[in-house]
Amino acid sequence: MFKIGLDAMGGDFAPEQPVLGAYEAVEKFNDIEILLYGQADEIKKYMKEPHERIKIVHCEEVIPMDIKDPAMAIRKYKDSSMVRACKDAKAGEIDAVVSAGATGALIAAGTLVVKRLKEVERPALAPVMPTIKANKYTILCDAGATSEAKPQYLYQNAKIASIYAKEVLHIQNPSVALLNIGTEEGKGTDLQKEAFKLIQADSSINFVGNMEGKTMISGEVDIIVADGYSGNIALKAVEGTSKSVFSLLKEELMSSTRGKVGALILKPIFSRIKKRMDASEVGGAMLLGVTAPVIKAHGSSDSLAIMNAIRQAREAVSQDVVNKISQALRENVE
Amino acid sequence: MFKIGLDAMGGDFAPEQPVLGAYEAVEKFNDIEILLYGQADEIKKYMKEPHERIKIVHCEEVIPMDIKDPAMAIRKYKDSSMVRACKDAKAGEIDAVVSAGATGALIAAGTLVVKRLKEVERPALAPVMPTIKANKYTILCDAGATSEAKPQYLYQNAKIASIYAKEVLHIQNPSVALLNIGTEEGKGTDLQKEAFKLIQADSSINFVGNMEGKTMISGEVDIIVADGYSGNIALKAVEGTSKSVFSLLKEELMSSTRGKVGALILKPIFSRIKKRMDASEVGGAMLLGVTAPVIKAHGSSDSLAIMNAIRQAREAVSQDVVNKISQALRENVE
Repeated sequence: MFKIGLDAMGGDFAPEQPVLGAYEAVEKFNDIEILLYGQADEIKKYMKEPHERIKIVHCEEVIPMDIKDPAMAIRKYKDSSMVRACKDAKAGEIDAVVSAGATGALIAAGTLVVKRLKEVERPALAPVMPTIKANKYTILCDAGATSEAKPQYLYQNAKIASIYAKEVLHIQNPSVALLNIGTEEGKGTDLQKEAFKLIQADSSINFVGNMEGKTMISGEVDIIVADGYSGNIALKAVEGTSKSVFSLLKEELMSSTRGKVGALILKPIFSRIKKRMDASEVGGAMLLGVTAPVIKAHGSSDSLAIMNAIRQAREAVSQDVVNKISQALRENVE
Repeated sequence: MFKIGLDAMGGDFAPEQPVLGAYEAVEKFNDIEILLYGQADEIKKYMKEPHERIKIVHCEEVIPMDIKDPAMAIRKYKDSSMVRACKDAKAGEIDAVVSAGATGALIAAGTLVVKRLKEVERPALAPVMPTIKANKYTILCDAGATSEAKPQYLYQNAKIASIYAKEVLHIQNPSVALLNIGTEEGKGTDLQKEAFKLIQADSSINFVGNMEGKTMISGEVDIIVADGYSGNIALKAVEGTSKSVFSLLKEELMSSTRGKVGALILKPIFSRIKKRMDASEVGGAMLLGVTAPVIKAHGSSDSLAIMNAIRQAREAVSQDVVNKISQALRENVE
């Protein structure tokens, strides 16, 4: 039985959607037990009937979604659902943590409470991005856990994201590209130039070279490696642009009768596109490089997104991803 | 009479579209003279009738669009249309340069041939991005001229982009945001933290704080300041995503009869959206911080895009932007 700790208070629609997602998950997988961390009274409001594999771990506090200083929040809210789940993961009481709470807080809790694997220089946040190719997803690593990067971190990102892609997403021989300002070797700042060499020198990585921002969602590669600063900028640019284009489309369609008629006809097609580009179909972002799987579900997660994040956590646990990462990097050092 | 040097050999559709764009420009503006730099025989093929304000400056060479090492290309192709135009701009023979040639080569030619203003630490490439707000554009500065940045460069980018926005695009009191991984002060790497303080301390800049990648094209600010590395990544992520979303839309529409019917009805609306999001309606990217206006038109520029880039160059010359930039930074030093 895999024990998954779910931060029931994290996310824009908590605790309702996390609780509903927990029910969906236990129905789907009979080898998991879910511990709901959070305010018991609040959680109970949304629990249909008792379930033998869903338990509540009462916590008094909640980390707000808009915290400014993540590291301080982790110290301040010691009895919060997020910190408590991370503590229990570190102690081995649970096997993985899923939270739709504040990203910065979860990265801090993952790093400071679950703690970094000693072989990993810096943890990295690895979201799975939808692409325009059907059923093709691309992992971005790092999307913002470590802003100030060194070449060695980028190299490790390539290494650990490859293991994650192989074990959890079942991608054989995942291809890896380095986010850069041009496709030729020798592009970018010293950081990218050095990282390029390190990644290329490791034959266990299926490295295909540099990749520009313009092909982020074209589905050409399985993994895009970046420092946390530019990875975060790029990911948000992609998400924001996609959202902006659809809102512009909606605005233009709704401003005329012709537009409204066309929109009505195309409704099922627009829904399909929306579904294809929807991150919640894929699951959450995994914080790689800490001692237990920590999954960040999108802040706006509905129960489906939570269920998918739990599925991901279950997969990471059953495939023993954490030990495989630690072992791969240990071999590297020896 | 303003003398604009046009690289007739630069761009995917050269020399045809540059030559046609030159004709459109002289018809629109009677105070400009255009010098077409390039292979005379090739250029003449696309010249309708002779025009007293369009002249050819014959150059033997052409810098290829796919050069790998821009600085070396500039030294190697001394008699290329791009380098010759830049030399003449430096010598004061012409007032500005417009080229749709390779971006890296034009940045190198601008920096090494037209040369940096002594008050400017590093030149910056400033494209004008369409946004989802009607008739609202946002300048990105720097989009890739200087990958390895220092806080002082970002501060200067804020300063010179403000002058450009005011003088050439006629935006009163342009608002400036710093591209970052979060909106709160204190976010980002040391580079952004230091740059934030420098920009904030200058009361001549209408600084509104940090901005995330997700609002790049929402049209909230007039200027986004970035280092060349992350600016380039973000710009290409925006352009690539917008293109990807439209190609996904097209694919889905064309895959069913329902889609085709809807597409037919919505054709005029889709055209309008495309036009709104089309960068060629706006003009090119200006290389700020060199001794004469240098405008980079998009590689895929048609005659309209070239004409708009010429319009921009004319405006930059007539408003004496180069001297205003140099003066503003000089006052700063004193």
